[in-house]
Amino acid sequence: MDVLQVGLIGLGTVGSGVARIISDKAAWLEKRAGMPVRLKRVAELDLRRKEGLPLGEATVSTQVEDILEDPDISVVIELIGGIEPAKTFLLSAMSRKKHVITANKALISSHGQEIFQHALKQQVEIGFEAAVAGGIPLIRSFKEGLAVDRMLSIAGIINGTANYILSSMTEKGLEFSECLQEAQAHGYAEADPTLDIEGQDTAHKLAILVALAYGKQIHPQDIYTEGIVRITGMDIRYALELGYRIKLLALAKIHEGKLEVRVHPTMIPSSHMLAMVGQAFNAVYVVAEDTGPVMFYGKGAGMMPTGSAVVSDLVAIARNIRSGAPARLPPLGFYSSSVQDIALQKMEDLVAKYYIRFPAMDRPGVLSKISGALGEHGISIHSVIQHGRQEKGPVNVIMLTHEAREQDLLKALAVVDGLEVILDRSLYIRIEDSFDPVPSE
Amino acid sequence: MDVLQVGLIGLGTVGSGVARIISDKAAWLEKRAGMPVRLKRVAELDLRRKEGLPLGEATVSTQVEDILEDPDISVVIELIGGIEPAKTFLLSAMSRKKHVITANKALISSHGQEIFQHALKQQVEIGFEAAVAGGIPLIRSFKEGLAVDRMLSIAGIINGTANYILSSMTEKGLEFSECLQEAQAHGYAEADPTLDIEGQDTAHKLAILVALAYGKQIHPQDIYTEGIVRITGMDIRYALELGYRIKLLALAKIHEGKLEVRVHPTMIPSSHMLAMVGQAFNAVYVVAEDTGPVMFYGKGAGMMPTGSAVVSDLVAIARNIRSGAPARLPPLGFYSSSVQDIALQKMEDLVAKYYIRFPAMDRPGVLSKISGALGEHGISIHSVIQHGRQEKGPVNVIMLTHEAREQDLLKALAVVDGLEVILDRSLYIRIEDSFDPVPSE
Repeated sequence: MDVLQVGLIGLGTVGSGVARIISDKAAWLEKRAGMPVRLKRVAELDLRRKEGLPLGEATVSTQVEDILEDPDISVVIELIGGIEPAKTFLLSAMSRKKHVITANKALISSHGQEIFQHALKQQVEIGFEAAVAGGIPLIRSFKEGLAVDRMLSIAGIINGTANYILSSMTEKGLEFSECLQEAQAHGYAEADPTLDIEGQDTAHKLAILVALAYGKQIHPQDIYTEGIVRITGMDIRYALELGYRIKLLALAKIHEGKLEVRVHPTMIPSSHMLAMVGQAFNAVYVVAEDTGPVMFYGKGAGMMPTGSAVVSDLVAIARNIRSGAPARLPPLGFYSSSVQDIALQKMEDLVAKYYIRFPAMDRPGVLSKISGALGEHGISIHSVIQHGRQEKGPVNVIMLTHEAREQDLLKALAVVDGLEVILDRSLYIRIEDSFDPVPSE
Repeated sequence: MDVLQVGLIGLGTVGSGVARIISDKAAWLEKRAGMPVRLKRVAELDLRRKEGLPLGEATVSTQVEDILEDPDISVVIELIGGIEPAKTFLLSAMSRKKHVITANKALISSHGQEIFQHALKQQVEIGFEAAVAGGIPLIRSFKEGLAVDRMLSIAGIINGTANYILSSMTEKGLEFSECLQEAQAHGYAEADPTLDIEGQDTAHKLAILVALAYGKQIHPQDIYTEGIVRITGMDIRYALELGYRIKLLALAKIHEGKLEVRVHPTMIPSSHMLAMVGQAFNAVYVVAEDTGPVMFYGKGAGMMPTGSAVVSDLVAIARNIRSGAPARLPPLGFYSSSVQDIALQKMEDLVAKYYIRFPAMDRPGVLSKISGALGEHGISIHSVIQHGRQEKGPVNVIMLTHEAREQDLLKALAVVDGLEVILDRSLYIRIEDSFDPVPSE
């Protein structure tokens, strides 16, 4: 029987998980893969990282070339992250007819086209199950089970750090900075949490999901992306009072024949399944034309969940090799390069409901000035909350709008923010009452 | 380019959905499948059923042989349900080297071994994604993504009818029979709902999930199965008061080296994700060793969701054929016939917490008699609720136990039910506080 010989680049958190699973679950994996899976070589610059890991007979070196040049190795796993040298390693491995696996969402989302083309040309498999939503078998479900249906909307909580912080703010009534520190203390946030709390990591993953769902490759930089740093404990409390939770959502929606793709804090009904997703958990809620709503929930990160996702790609590759179809499926699950010509909705043309908080002076006439400016821009107000002031000082006027165009809202807010009675920049959060859009085509 | 020629047996609800999807989504399916998918022949005894369906150039006849004997047809879809003649049709199709797809959980769960063996021998694919949890890509996730991990527990709401009834009872405060009628009126329950409300349908599906997860094929008749007909509105209200919801759960758990497999109404914490699963929705909550908790949620039945699951099997078969691996994967996703030797836990040895309701006379000393009998059998009481009687008449004494052995509980209840002060058979519901068992091996 063949043996699947594996080369692993990077012994960080996920790499260590992969090494452990290949060792600890060897017998089980052989039954699932149809052949033994063996870690033959590991490349890692920091050789201390191999201590304590069950690496068996694997050779550990600092040289990636040792892996790339080993003809016995048929799969290379890249787990170092970042664009370079990860990209060069992947391309080189594929050029040598090796299958590749990566968890690198930044790389896949921004250079997917080049990498996928190369995989197709070389007729090798590229596995990236671990790039989105860690332990949830989501990529596979998008490429296979749900691939036959037309996704009307995708709403995802796909950044554990941001969800941990927002959940902590909601449950403990704390402010953003306190919850960020707590997340760092518990290992749910990195020392530099920028990519997580500013939304870019979410945008990377959304770009991958959109490519899988619609065959449309969007650079993450072209996705409207707003993080959670401006959300205050007060906004969380008002949201709760109004029957909502605030989540950092990755959204893709077909609306009036256009595709909306965006990442921002979003108010969703407290009764929605996504509102229940707490701590560092991930979930993706898809509404598909025939299938209706489907939700996937699980751990989006961590040594073992993400390691297990990487190993699931290994097993898929072994099964393909065993059955004589080493490159069974194109990377995005489409056999056509021109999948569909769906235009992106411009953010300024977005139509949404909004929550807006205006930090204002506690003075007669404030409400009329704000609502006047909104009215002049065609923004219709659904409801207003203004609690009595706690002490002498500013008040916060909360308004929920009816559906409004984003560009009208921005113009109106520019006017309101210039009013003398407004003490600080207003804050708005988009509201999603439903993820079940009516198909319009 | 090849064309995937399909024969469809049965134009009932799911069959109609399949025909619609193959017609309406033809262009999309071709991009996903890598070849056109064409419905060539349909067999249906009631020819009126073809009216209004977009069957294109498909030939409709009452003769299944027309499909089986057509050498152009490479996939046969069986959607007539029941054991025979469905089983003969599937086996005959496979004998002629045709791939098969079925949504027939009764057949797969009770004759899977024979059918799967035949598929392996003939080197054809058998797709049964639609047999469990309709539109949720669950079978595929069990066979592929989660296949590398060891599932510590599986807890599923996999019968839409039962969930619809229990959810209605909970939300509307109605009794079982009223909710059953309502479910029938809305098309969520059949005229004869026995298989759904007595739990057998759930047991069929659980047997399939257990086979996929553990490689162990259990006949559904060997699964302890208890339906929801004895649950009253009062039990639902007490459950709510105690912080629980009552759900009909399919459960599989590794506990102390043994495998528990059971179907029964279960009290789960109101805050658990599974408690949120309302109406006719399905959900399966898996806790895996490395991956942790993963949940899948969606529609478990219906023309289009289930039809879409069937078509996802078609696309998988097309992809296999296209890549030169027509039978890529063994039916259960294992390459070994002896997967693992895990013994089944006997139901009498189950250790669980229980909710018990005793319909009793409102008379001094009742509580002491009940608790005395329980104590004599080693059943320790966690808490008691006895609300003041509403009018003259019986009272219901509610007890929650600590962990107890099922056989001890049954003995104790036999004694209590024989007491003069007890007016009717006591009712017990097992409680599951957590689906995150500690691995014990």
